[in-house]
Parts: sequence; structure tokens; C-alpha cells
Amino acid sequence: MMYDIEILGNSEKGKNFIDRIKKKDFLFSFVISYTATCEIPGITIAGVDQESIKYTPAADAEFLHYGFCKSIEKIPMTPDGKPTPALLTKVALESASIPHVIINAGSKITPQLPYFHIDIESGKNIAQSPALENSSVVRAVDYGRIIGRTLASLTNCLLIGESIPGGTTTALAVMRKLGLDAMVSSSIPNNPVELKNRVVESASKRFDSDDPFVIVSNLGDPMIPVIAGMLSSASEITNVLLSGGTQMAAVLAFGKKIGFNENNTAIGTTCYITNDKTANFQQIVAQVSDIPILTVNPKLEISKFEGIRAYSQGFAKEGAGAGGSIIASILKTGTNSQTLLELIEKEYQRIFT
Amino acid sequence: MMYDIEILGNSEKGKNFIDRIKKKDFLFSFVISYTATCEIPGITIAGVDQESIKYTPAADAEFLHYGFCKSIEKIPMTPDGKPTPALLTKVALESASIPHVIINAGSKITPQLPYFHIDIESGKNIAQSPALENSSVVRAVDYGRIIGRTLASLTNCLLIGESIPGGTTTALAVMRKLGLDAMVSSSIPNNPVELKNRVVESASKRFDSDDPFVIVSNLGDPMIPVIAGMLSSASEITNVLLSGGTQMAAVLAFGKKIGFNENNTAIGTTCYITNDKTANFQQIVAQVSDIPILTVNPKLEISKFEGIRAYSQGFAKEGAGAGGSIIASILKTGTNSQTLLELIEKEYQRIFT
Repeated sequence: MMYDIEILGNSEKGKNFIDRIKKKDFLFSFVISYTATCEIPGITIAGVDQESIKYTPAADAEFLHYGFCKSIEKIPMTPDGKPTPALLTKVALESASIPHVIINAGSKITPQLPYFHIDIESGKNIAQSPALENSSVVRAVDYGRIIGRTLASLTNCLLIGESIPGGTTTALAVMRKLGLDAMVSSSIPNNPVELKNRVVESASKRFDSDDPFVIVSNLGDPMIPVIAGMLSSASEITNVLLSGGTQMAAVLAFGKKIGFNENNTAIGTTCYITNDKTANFQQIVAQVSDIPILTVNPKLEISKFEGIRAYSQGFAKEGAGAGGSIIASILKTGTNSQTLLELIEKEYQRIFT
Repeated sequence: MMYDIEILGNSEKGKNFIDRIKKKDFLFSFVISYTATCEIPGITIAGVDQESIKYTPAADAEFLHYGFCKSIEKIPMTPDGKPTPALLTKVALESASIPHVIINAGSKITPQLPYFHIDIESGKNIAQSPALENSSVVRAVDYGRIIGRTLASLTNCLLIGESIPGGTTTALAVMRKLGLDAMVSSSIPNNPVELKNRVVESASKRFDSDDPFVIVSNLGDPMIPVIAGMLSSASEITNVLLSGGTQMAAVLAFGKKIGFNENNTAIGTTCYITNDKTANFQQIVAQVSDIPILTVNPKLEISKFEGIRAYSQGFAKEGAGAGGSIIASILKTGTNSQTLLELIEKEYQRIFT
């Protein structure tokens, strides 16, 4: 382990990836999106209540940028008040002066800041109907490719994070239909695995195809094709660190079908994902590609605040590119988890007092 | 003169600016916008006919990106078939592998590509009513500042260009009301100076204020506050080359009121602007600020194509950041006008045959 970062999978590739990006420039791209699948009761806690959930992606973006939200009053949190992982992302990026851009890939709510606009609708509830028009998936990939090419030409390492409540269920559906043996994580400590499986199975029965575009169109969400498109072009130009958990594994699985440069790609996440026994993150990634996984232990369990310790107890675990951002901060500046934890606690205090 | 680029104004500052950016990385940002002032008959030829003009900014962006347009069939041109200056911009940027981002600041038509979205309406016809809500001008500056900060952190030199038909008239109105002795250029060889003066004078009579926000709100267009906001934040971080003619002088004049770092700023344009006797570009800039003007002679008058020679005969003259892009290409790669002219002719042939 170096710099509190552990490499899973191909360790030589992981070391080379780290060598190429450490002390260099990073750019964080944050893809906000929406799938109505999150409206299935009990499937997510990425919001205080049912009504709030649709605001979470836009509010995450606003919080990242302004340090407060404009679309909602407080910052996004679980029903019992545990804060969005965007808190970790914000602190990590600011600690290392890493710039960010927001990409709106079908968010239900328009964030009140400048963002890259992608002409794509929100995803429908896959329990009820196909998620997206087939033509939308094609356009999402095209637009993702354009954005990926532009952003990649401006940095040594492009981080890509996401915020899409309900996204682990669509990720699961896409990966299973693509033939992977996949189990996904959850924002909920007691992962509603059976509910997710039921949704995925019934949605999968609606059609019969192994065409990856048809699969994403039926079972996916707008985030998956947009980030896969970004990965596809960006990885030809620069280093790409997909920042997220099992949802990024779904991006990787679809990305594999449309093509990307595996030699410039890694996944960065928190140990709360890689240690999650209700999921099989490392195994999914290994089934798709030999890219390295960088995993960081942010040591949040030693925090003096219960709301921060919660991440280590299975709430949220990851999201808004938190893991990748912490890794980037450590690699850019040489800081460590302990120092970052102090900054995270300061930010937590600022918000909650 | 070095590299076919002449410095007007403060030559020492100009040389220093060039020294700081030559052989370095550039990023071109292209702000597309709309003012209904362009609907006044005879005020612009930035489109084949009245109906086409509103498509020009979006189509310029599409052409720059794809090499063809999606919103209209051909590329934007004058009623007699002379092509948009975006042709020069595209060739210059591609010749030097300079990446670009599109910023949609109230374009009437949405371009079919990913762009930075700014929450601002199109500008109204200043002959009939105030251009923008006062709150829109404030938001345009705020959003411009955010975009400027982000883009500036990714490059050694941020180029800012624009496409807004009718924009010289709003520029003139804003500059006059700000107390400048200003005459503006035109896309038309026979500059409709009297028509512009009439529009400006009657619009100026509608209100009495020297508050720069009130002036832009009454007489301006969305492009001016957005780019002034970008200039304001970006010039604190990196070098900024405002790429354009008398419209950028209006940006500079408003920018002076909201503040920007003059030591990191220059204006880049073509000699067709700086030699334009119907305008007083250099004098306007000097009234506002001691920043250097970089002006390039693209030698288009020696082209074998009449449609290219037209730029040197007073058609278009500048626009879509053409002058600044040519300057950037020369400074980044060490190329010269002659080599660029050959590439421009190739592109012209590709489009028109």
C-alpha cells in the first residue's frame, strides 16, 4: 500500500497508473443524472424523502461548487440526516485545487450553475418500461465522446464521478444482461438485494437481445452511456480514473462493448465498496477488464462525528466520485487520509452548525 | 512585427504577453448568443437571409466542431455566399490542435452538440425595448465568472471568441453610454453607420443612468456580460486573449467596470479590424485600458478564391474568434500566415465543391 491507497487486480498496471499521474494535474468531471427507478419505495436513501431524491444530483453539484445548495435548502442527506458523499468529494478536490466541471446527463432538476448540457431525457423506471429511447443511448455515447475528448485534452488525469439515485439497480440490470456475475452495493447499510433482484429480473424478461445498446436502452440510465462515451474517447488521450463503485463497473462493462483504451484506465473507489460483502466489485471488474482498482481507506471510522463514521458503517459508502477524488488529492499533493479527515470534519462542522 | 503578428498599443506589454504564451497550451472558448437587434433590416449580413441569421451562432459552433452544420444545411454565409469567419477559426485551431468548448449564452437556436449551458435569455431588440432583465445581467456575469475560473485553471492561455449577429450595434450602444468615443466595424463592407447610430441614439434616450449593469441591461446583449465575467475571473488565473474586434472592445469596457487583471489580458484580432477606417478599434481600447492589441495579417487578399479574398475586402472581417485563433496557432506552432492560407483554401475547397 502506498499513500493509503491499495491496488487491487493487476498491481503492476496499478503502480504504472499511479506513477503516470502522481504530482500531475487532475480534472474532476461530475455527471449528474436521473432514473425514475429510484422512485421504487425502499430502493435508495439518497435523499431525505421520496420528493427530495430527485433534487440530490443537482444539489450535489451545487454543493460541490458553491459549498451550499440552491435548489434545496440543506445539502442532500439520508432520511436520518447522514450527509451526501459529495461532502468528501468537495473537501478532497479543494484540498488539492482540482478543478471540476458539471455534466448534466438527464438530471430531473436543473442545477443552478453553468454545466455541460447533453441532449438526453431522464431515465424511466425500469420496473415499468424501457429506460431510454435507443436513439438517446446512441446520442448519449456520441455526446459523451465529444466531452471526453475535450476534457481529456486539458488534463493529465480525468476523474469521472456520478450522482444518480437508484443507479445501482440499473447498473445491476445492465451488468446481468451483459452476462456478468454481478452483485451491487447500496446507499443503504442493509442492502435491499432481493428488491433489486426482483426489479432486475422482471425488467430483463421484457426483451431478448444481447445488443449492448438495446440492453442499456431497456435496463440502463443516462449516466451509463454518457460516461462510457467519455471513457471511450478520453482514454485514448489521457489517464482516466473512473471514480465510483459498482455503477462504474456497469460503465466499464458497457464501455468494453464500445471500446476504450484499457492501458490508460483505472477505477478509484473507497474501501467501503471493495470490502462490501453484499457486492462483488472486484470480481465484476475482473470479468470485464484487467484494469487496476485503486481503493482508499479514508479512515472515517475514527471520526469524532457520528455522521462521518456512518460512511464506514455502510451508509452511502461512495458516490459523487468521493473515492477517486480522495485518491487524486493524495496523489497530487502527497497528503494522507488523516489530514483529509480533519478537513472533512471541519467541513462537516461548517455545514451542521 | 514577429510571426506576422503586430503589436498595437503598449508594445512591451504585448511582447511580454507573447513570451508568456508562445509554444504553450491554448484553449478556445466560443460564446454563442443572440440579440434580436439583428432583425433590424440592413443591420447585418451574418446569414443568407433574415430567417437564417438566427441559426448562425449555433451553426458556427457545429461547423467548428463537426466540420459541417446540423441545424442548417450549408455553413453560415452572407446573402451572396461568402462563408462565415468560423472557417478561419476552425482551420487555425485544428492546425495547432487547440481544443475548444462551446458556451451557449442565449443563442436562439440550440446547437446540436454538448455545450456549457448558461441560464440566460436571448437579447431583445434594443430599438424596441431594453435588451435584458437587470437580474439576467447579474447572473450572466456570475455564470461567466464560474466558467472563466474553471477554464482558466486548465490552460496557459484562454482564447474567448463570440458569434452574435447584430452584436456590433449593441456593442456600440454600450460603449457610447459608458462614455467612450466609439465607432464599430461591421460584417458589411459598406458599414451601415447611420442606421446603427440612429438605433443607438434612440435606445439610449429611453433611460438615464451611468450604472454599467443598467447600461448593459438596456443596450447590450447576453454575450457582453458573460464574456466580461469570464475575463474577470480567468485573467486572475491565466493569460486571456479576447478574440474579436469592436465587440470585444465593448466587453473590455464593461469588464473594466466589474474588474479584471489587465496584466494578463490582451485583445487579438485581424488587420481587417485594426485597419477599418469606419471604426476606431485601437482608440476605443486605449480609452479603456492599457492592454496590448495583437493584430495578424492573414494575407487573404492573395488567395486564389474570391470567397476568401472577400474577408480582406471588408466582408465579415472578423468573428468567431478568427483573428485570435490565427494568432494562437502561429504562437503555438510557429507556423505563418502563408501556410495557414493554404490550409484555409483547402478547407474552402472541401466545403464548396
